[in-house]
Amino acid sequence: MTSLVDTLRSCVGPAHVLDAGDLAAYEQDWRRRVRGKALAVVRPGSTAEVAAVVRACAAAGTSIVPQGGNTGLVVGGVPDASGKQVVLSLQRMNAVRSIDGENLTMTAEAGCVLQAVQEAADAAGFLFPLSLAAEGSCTIGGNLSTNAGGTQVLRYGNARELCLGLEVVTAQGEIWDGLAGLRKDNTGYDLRQLFVGSEGTLGVITAATLKLYPRPAATLTAWAAVPSMEHAVRLLALAQKRLASGLTGFEVMGDFALSLVARHYPQQRVPFLGQTPYGVLLENTDHESEAHARAQFEALLEAALEDGCATDAVVAENIAQAHALWHVRESIPLAQAEEGLNIKHDISVPISRIPAFCAATDAVLQREIAGVRLVNFGHLGDGNLHYNVQAPAGGDMAAFLREQEERVNTLVYDQVHKFGGSISAEHGIGELKVDKLPHYKSPVALSMMRAVKDALDPAGILNPGRVVRG
Amino acid sequence: MTSLVDTLRSCVGPAHVLDAGDLAAYEQDWRRRVRGKALAVVRPGSTAEVAAVVRACAAAGTSIVPQGGNTGLVVGGVPDASGKQVVLSLQRMNAVRSIDGENLTMTAEAGCVLQAVQEAADAAGFLFPLSLAAEGSCTIGGNLSTNAGGTQVLRYGNARELCLGLEVVTAQGEIWDGLAGLRKDNTGYDLRQLFVGSEGTLGVITAATLKLYPRPAATLTAWAAVPSMEHAVRLLALAQKRLASGLTGFEVMGDFALSLVARHYPQQRVPFLGQTPYGVLLENTDHESEAHARAQFEALLEAALEDGCATDAVVAENIAQAHALWHVRESIPLAQAEEGLNIKHDISVPISRIPAFCAATDAVLQREIAGVRLVNFGHLGDGNLHYNVQAPAGGDMAAFLREQEERVNTLVYDQVHKFGGSISAEHGIGELKVDKLPHYKSPVALSMMRAVKDALDPAGILNPGRVVRG
Repeated sequence: MTSLVDTLRSCVGPAHVLDAGDLAAYEQDWRRRVRGKALAVVRPGSTAEVAAVVRACAAAGTSIVPQGGNTGLVVGGVPDASGKQVVLSLQRMNAVRSIDGENLTMTAEAGCVLQAVQEAADAAGFLFPLSLAAEGSCTIGGNLSTNAGGTQVLRYGNARELCLGLEVVTAQGEIWDGLAGLRKDNTGYDLRQLFVGSEGTLGVITAATLKLYPRPAATLTAWAAVPSMEHAVRLLALAQKRLASGLTGFEVMGDFALSLVARHYPQQRVPFLGQTPYGVLLENTDHESEAHARAQFEALLEAALEDGCATDAVVAENIAQAHALWHVRESIPLAQAEEGLNIKHDISVPISRIPAFCAATDAVLQREIAGVRLVNFGHLGDGNLHYNVQAPAGGDMAAFLREQEERVNTLVYDQVHKFGGSISAEHGIGELKVDKLPHYKSPVALSMMRAVKDALDPAGILNPGRVVRG
Repeated sequence: MTSLVDTLRSCVGPAHVLDAGDLAAYEQDWRRRVRGKALAVVRPGSTAEVAAVVRACAAAGTSIVPQGGNTGLVVGGVPDASGKQVVLSLQRMNAVRSIDGENLTMTAEAGCVLQAVQEAADAAGFLFPLSLAAEGSCTIGGNLSTNAGGTQVLRYGNARELCLGLEVVTAQGEIWDGLAGLRKDNTGYDLRQLFVGSEGTLGVITAATLKLYPRPAATLTAWAAVPSMEHAVRLLALAQKRLASGLTGFEVMGDFALSLVARHYPQQRVPFLGQTPYGVLLENTDHESEAHARAQFEALLEAALEDGCATDAVVAENIAQAHALWHVRESIPLAQAEEGLNIKHDISVPISRIPAFCAATDAVLQREIAGVRLVNFGHLGDGNLHYNVQAPAGGDMAAFLREQEERVNTLVYDQVHKFGGSISAEHGIGELKVDKLPHYKSPVALSMMRAVKDALDPAGILNPGRVVRG
C-alpha cells in the first residue's frame, strides 16, 4: 500500500512535499497564537497538480488546509495539532499569466504576492488598487479567499469587487475555469462570489482575473485635526461630496493611538498630537494633474475649516511628506505591540452609527474594565474600526489578557451587534471567531452557510472547522 | 380540507389573491413570447406575508414564480402553462423603508419601481445610479434578482455592486434579515451574492439596502464619429485614462442601427449619419462644476481627434441636446421593431476582443444567412453588445424567424463562446436560454449550480425550470 505522502510526492515531485524539518513557516499562524502540526506541506506548481493533490487527499479522507502567504489574522490557514492535515501551499503558483490592457484585466496565479501583482500592473501602466499592511508577503489567492480590505476600499471596494473571474479546484478535485474577464455575465449563479471570502472551505482558488485601473496622474495626502468622531463623519460626507471617487483614503486615528506612535517612534512627527481628540488622514487621487488635485484638496479643507468639522489641516507638499503621514498611520499596530499586550477587534458598523457606537462602547469598557486604554483607529470611510484595547499601563499585561480578553471581546461584540455591525469587517472568521458567529449571526444565515458547505464539500475535507462548524 | 387558494387568501387577505378575470399582466411575458396560466396571483403586503405564502405553497408542494414589474426579457417571471403555479407578485411591497445619508444607503422593498428608487434618492440629495430602459416599470427586487445592468455599469457596476444587503424569504419560508448596510463584513459566505442574479430560484428577495452616491455637479453628453470598432476601443481607453470614474457612459452604435432610427423617427437628428461606420455616445459626470466637466470633455475629444480614434465629435450644449442624443441611442430597439421582426442577442466578450469578435461574426452571418442585416449597438465600456439580426428587407419576416432564429442564435453563440464571452450579459437565463447553457457553460460550473439549488431549495418549489434544470 502506498501512503498518502508518497502519492503526494508523485503528484508534485518529491522536492515539493515537506514532511520533515522545521515547518514553522507553514504551521505557525502570523500572530503566533497557534502552532499546528501538518502531516505534510505540499507545494504544487500548477492547477493540474493542485487538482491531483485534492483528489489524492479526498480518496484518503484526509483534510486539506489551503495556504497563501500565511499572514491571516484569524487562524484560518494553519493546520490543527493532529498531525493529520495536509497544508496545500499555493506559493509556487506565482505567475502573472497575462495582462489585457484594453480589457483592463490581469490574470494572476493564486500564489502571486500582492506587491508583485501591484508591480506588474504598474509596469504595464496600470493600477491594481488593493493595498494592505501585509502586501509584501500575502498572496492574491489569500486576499481573495479572505476578501481582504485595506486602505482603498472606500474607492475600489474589497478584494471581491476587484475580481472578475476565478479558477478553482473543487473539493472533488475538478478544475473550474471561470477566468473570463467579463464585466457583465448573467449566466446563472455567480459562483465566484461563493469562493471569494470562503477562506478555503469550499474550494481552492488557483488563479484569478483582476480588475486594473488607469494609473492616476497624482496622489496627495492630507491630515486634518477633528474635534470628535461626529465631526470626522461630517468631514467624510463633505469629502465624498467634493472629491467623489477622488477620495481614495479616509483613516481616523484617536489621539491616544497616535501618542503611542510618538512614544515608541520619537523620530516620527505626528501632526496635531495632543491638540485634538482625532486625526484624519485623507488621500485624494486625481486623473488630471497634481495642480488640479492640490486645488481641489485645499478647497475641501478650507470648506471643512469653515464648517468646523476640521480645526486644522496640512497637505503633504511632496511624496516624502505623504509617506511620512501614511507611516504614522501604519505604525499604530506596531506601537501597540511595543506598548505591550493588547486585544484587537476588527469591526464595522454603519458609518452613521460610528459616533454613537464609540461613545457607548468606550463608556461600557471604562465602566467594566479598570484601567482600560482604548486604541481606536481605522478605515472610517468603510465604517471599519480597529477598536483595540491596550492592557492597563504598568500592571501584569499577560494576566490582564488571560483574565479579561474574553470579557472584553464579549462587551465589544455585544455593542457591535447592538449597533447592527459585523464582528469581522476585513479579517474573516477562521478558527478564531468561528464559535462566536452563532451568537451574532442569524440562525437562518448560518443554516444556509452550512447547506452551501455540505453541497460543495460534502466530505468536509476543505479547511474543516473554519468559518462553519461541522 | 382547505384549498391552497383559500389558505393564500387567509395569508394576504382575499383582495390580494387573484384567480379570476384577466391576469395577462402577470401571465404574459414582456416580449409577448409566452403566455402562461397561474393557479393564482398572490400579492403580499409584507415580508411576513411573503413568508406565510411560501410556507403554504411549500406545504402544498406548489411551485412559486416570484415576479416584480414583469419586464424581464428571458421568460423568467411568468408561470408555465400548467395552471398549477402560484405567481408571487412583490408589487405591493413598495415602501422606501429608510435613507441613511451619512452611510450613503437606502433600504427599499422589492416592489419599489426603479424610477421611484431613483427619485427618492434624488429627493434626499443623492444619486442611485442604476438606470435602464424599463426603469419606469421594473422593480428593484427584479433588478437584483436578475443582476440588471444598464447604461452606468462602466462606472457604478451592475445591480450586484449597488447592493449592500438583502432581506430574503427562503424556500422554507424563513426570513433572513441581511439588510445591514455595511461596506465591509467578512463573517462567512456572502449569501447576498447568491440571491442576486439567481432569478428567484433560490429565495424571494423582499427588500434591499442599496448604495447611494453624492449627486454630481454636472453631467455632459458627447457624440463621436469613429472609423471602426478598433477605433472605438481605443477611444474608450483614452476616455478611461483621462476622465477615470468621470466616464459614466460609453455606448457604441453601428451606422445601420442608427439609420433605422433616422428612417422610422425622421424628427430625430442622428449625428454623422452615413458618414462613419460607428457612432459613440460618451457621458462625463463631474463633481466639481459644469465648466470643469466641459473643459475636460473638450480636451478628451481634441486628443481623440488628434489620435485619429475619432474623426468628428459634438458635445451637447445643454440638457435638451443631451437628452436628444440619449434618445437616439434608446430609440434603436424601437426602430428595430418598426423595421420588422428581429433576433436579439445580449452578449459580452472581453473588450479587447470585441473588434475581432464583430469582424468574425459579421462574416459568418453574411456568409451563412442570405440578406442578413446586422444591428449592432451596446455598452462597449462593459464589453456588452446587443448584437441583433434584422430579418432581410422586403421578404417574409415571420418565415425568416421561423426558419433561421435557432440557426442564427447558434452561429452567434458559438462565436461568443469562441471569443471567451457570455451568452447573457445582462438579461439572465430564465427559461429562454436554460437549455442553451449546457452547450456554453462548463459542466463543473453547472454541477455546482445544481448543488447550490438543491441545497437551498431541496423541494424545487422556487421558479422551477429557470436558470438550472431539475
